[in-house]
Amino acid sequence: MANAKEVTIYDIAKRLNISATTVSRGLQDHPTISGKTKKKIADLAEQMGYRSNHFARSLRNQKTNTIGIIVPRLNSHFMSSVIAGIEEAANEQGYSLLIAQSSESSVKEAASARTMFDSRVDGLLVSLAFDTPDLGHFSHFFKKDIPVIFFDRVMEHENSTNILIDNRQAAFNATRHLIEQGCRRIVHITAPTLRNVYKDRLKGYKEALSQYKIKFREDHVIITDLSQEAGAEAAKTILKMKPLPEGVFAANDSCAVGCMLALKERGIRIPEDIAFVGFNNDPVTGVIDPHLTTISYRGYEIGQVAARHLISYLSGTSHVSSTNTIILRSELIVRASSLKKAGNK
Amino acid sequence: MANAKEVTIYDIAKRLNISATTVSRGLQDHPTISGKTKKKIADLAEQMGYRSNHFARSLRNQKTNTIGIIVPRLNSHFMSSVIAGIEEAANEQGYSLLIAQSSESSVKEAASARTMFDSRVDGLLVSLAFDTPDLGHFSHFFKKDIPVIFFDRVMEHENSTNILIDNRQAAFNATRHLIEQGCRRIVHITAPTLRNVYKDRLKGYKEALSQYKIKFREDHVIITDLSQEAGAEAAKTILKMKPLPEGVFAANDSCAVGCMLALKERGIRIPEDIAFVGFNNDPVTGVIDPHLTTISYRGYEIGQVAARHLISYLSGTSHVSSTNTIILRSELIVRASSLKKAGNK
Repeated sequence: MANAKEVTIYDIAKRLNISATTVSRGLQDHPTISGKTKKKIADLAEQMGYRSNHFARSLRNQKTNTIGIIVPRLNSHFMSSVIAGIEEAANEQGYSLLIAQSSESSVKEAASARTMFDSRVDGLLVSLAFDTPDLGHFSHFFKKDIPVIFFDRVMEHENSTNILIDNRQAAFNATRHLIEQGCRRIVHITAPTLRNVYKDRLKGYKEALSQYKIKFREDHVIITDLSQEAGAEAAKTILKMKPLPEGVFAANDSCAVGCMLALKERGIRIPEDIAFVGFNNDPVTGVIDPHLTTISYRGYEIGQVAARHLISYLSGTSHVSSTNTIILRSELIVRASSLKKAGNK
Repeated sequence: MANAKEVTIYDIAKRLNISATTVSRGLQDHPTISGKTKKKIADLAEQMGYRSNHFARSLRNQKTNTIGIIVPRLNSHFMSSVIAGIEEAANEQGYSLLIAQSSESSVKEAASARTMFDSRVDGLLVSLAFDTPDLGHFSHFFKKDIPVIFFDRVMEHENSTNILIDNRQAAFNATRHLIEQGCRRIVHITAPTLRNVYKDRLKGYKEALSQYKIKFREDHVIITDLSQEAGAEAAKTILKMKPLPEGVFAANDSCAVGCMLALKERGIRIPEDIAFVGFNNDPVTGVIDPHLTTISYRGYEIGQVAARHLISYLSGTSHVSSTNTIILRSELIVRASSLKKAGNK
């Protein structure tokens, strides 16, 4: 494998018959170099495939204009909306994005953080994996004062800002809605509750039960990876419950849909036998029959807010550490899957 | 904004009371440095947050063990499957991934290529945007002999390999299936045919019509961005056709689903009035009622093959330019949405 030689400022200097210092200054937009010379240098650098050496630049000018993003998975509508929102805000300010996925593994998350660090991103936007126990693998960023902002799946840190919705309140509303529809035996399908989003949704579910004097039952909480397949698996567990539950509150829509499809195949009527509420308002909620009641929150807006917050810090107009948490709105969207009372009329 | 000072090999050398040359050699796994010293250097480098300076390394040892991926959008099941396949193969060999999306814009694609180039990826896997006219923005990679492999949305280049399915054949099979179900007026919903995948699918559609002596009609081809919303828009165009078409072949599943939902709302029966075939075998094909007939091809496998091919080149066991094209299998999966004959029985 033959690698072409890396182009240096010396090569550019030689071709233009000027000093390497002039080339270096020209590339750094130094005021002592004329516009004409800068253009000549920039054009030749581009033509020769020169790659700027961030390392050798002055310490005050290390920006790469790149934002790193680490997310658990790239396969959800929510996450692609968040990334679209980040991209919109980043492009406005001339930033590029580098994205990595942890595949829900803290080990891969740490490796991705390392790759981002080596790629010299100016800042990092992170949504944590299921099993990330602490923020140790971001310590290089904190030490170097490279801002890290967490969104959706977050963890508290004194040098960081968290951007999320009120998951406890949203889950409370979802569960209360099912209770108001006459459900008392309500199953909650969720993910490992190490992560704030699932811990808080479980808390909201429990609080709604408690407010309506319904006893919380451990065996009504099913822990999964929240995939559509996991929803079908959860249906098997539900079918074994005697009596059957009257409602299911799933912590995301794909899992709710997988569960609904499997139950429908076994002759269970939705919502008459079992009412359903999901979470995220994915497009699939309008495809499944009956349409799925869900919690809507704007991933696009979360992405925009996260990116703008990061960029305003990078441009020196705000401090990440001065803002601890930003809470965005969510709302319950009621559709046919949960309307037991309407359905029974 | 205070930036901590960048750690250099001189800082490490000073702390360990050894020469900078020894540190540099240690970090590069040089044979003259003892294992014990190498470990001491590596540990301190890690602890101090040293970032390796690729630029200053010897020319033969510039690897970053990073693969760049540029895709049109991150919001499809197909693309997240491809990335999962790439990740599996890359992780096996100790490579990290950096991902960027072009959002179907050749300008953003060029900017992403630049970011990847500056991040010194060892190789690049690319699926092209709708409107990319040529491969000029990858010329830096070609010049430096950094391998670029195109998958799914490809363009011919003498220094590159293309990995894709036989889109013409797949579209031929889809269209023939609709004709065999009794459809003669068949609408094809697709994307701009500058890209091979859509050009070839249109070709296959035309060939099937021609083989069954059905005249091709320009007004039966609807060009969209293939989103679910675009499918609903296409339904409006279809509803204005007199007589109505008997079949629709859509170039992806989300668009087919959007179109089906909109037609169903207007009382059109599927497949009795209009039969449907999609493309991709997304999970939503099993959620929509009736389930959607589609072309299945394994994004995961495309990702694995692309990554393995790239890595075998990087490790010197193959040449990208010696393999021009790799064609992977696809198959027609028949479901209720297209079974007019069964439906009429």
